[in-house]
Amino acid sequence: MILDIDHIGILVESIEKAIPMYVNLFGYILQKTVTMESVGLTVAFLKQGQTNIELVAYTGNTDQTAFSRYVMGEQAGYNHICYAVDDLTKTLSDLESVGINAIEGFPMKGGHGKIAFLDPNDTEGALIELCEPLD
Amino acid sequence: MILDIDHIGILVESIEKAIPMYVNLFGYILQKTVTMESVGLTVAFLKQGQTNIELVAYTGNTDQTAFSRYVMGEQAGYNHICYAVDDLTKTLSDLESVGINAIEGFPMKGGHGKIAFLDPNDTEGALIELCEPLD
Repeated sequence: MILDIDHIGILVESIEKAIPMYVNLFGYILQKTVTMESVGLTVAFLKQGQTNIELVAYTGNTDQTAFSRYVMGEQAGYNHICYAVDDLTKTLSDLESVGINAIEGFPMKGGHGKIAFLDPNDTEGALIELCEPLD
Repeated sequence: MILDIDHIGILVESIEKAIPMYVNLFGYILQKTVTMESVGLTVAFLKQGQTNIELVAYTGNTDQTAFSRYVMGEQAGYNHICYAVDDLTKTLSDLESVGINAIEGFPMKGGHGKIAFLDPNDTEGALIELCEPLD
């Protein structure tokens, strides 16, 4: 079951330029910045009221970024919305039964627990992430 | 001053296909669907908890859609985030002083009051709308 929106993922070229813009001009609070070397990403976690955004930047053109680039693409801007789910396996099975499939390679363990990205060809063009928080 | 996120705008090819997906699979409640002929858009307003999304589709390739297509582009997916502001003129002036400019043609009257879209070249690639609700 879909529980709620977890975060909005925004792909940026320069996380160093993007953080002060969102903090100083748009009222977000920076919570932490994490570099995840295994997937070639630096992610800044920011919050404004009930809304969590994640500014995501590739750490370079290494082998580690290849899968992330395949999933999230190259276009800076709003990239995905992540919904928290109580049971990822069941949710993916329910979605598959109506023709909405996970991208090949998912589910996998991600920064938020067990995650899967859905194929945007199946969701009217919007990249959707699902996450089942780890205990 | 930026007050809060008003909505997330999602560009879709088929609003008829997108609405049941968001309602039946992702837990949104459809509030209304409005066709705005002067700007060549059909917009479906949906809500889930604190989050408002707007599914936006062009009504065709008419002259009326030209300005909307120039602002929002052609790529289906997450298109913009709209922030409510208390004073659009002052906010635009403050942003301009740090090098963030409105797209030419704004501010103008929109569905939410007085609105302006900011140039994504000035905002690390993310299309941002500002709206000052009408009294």
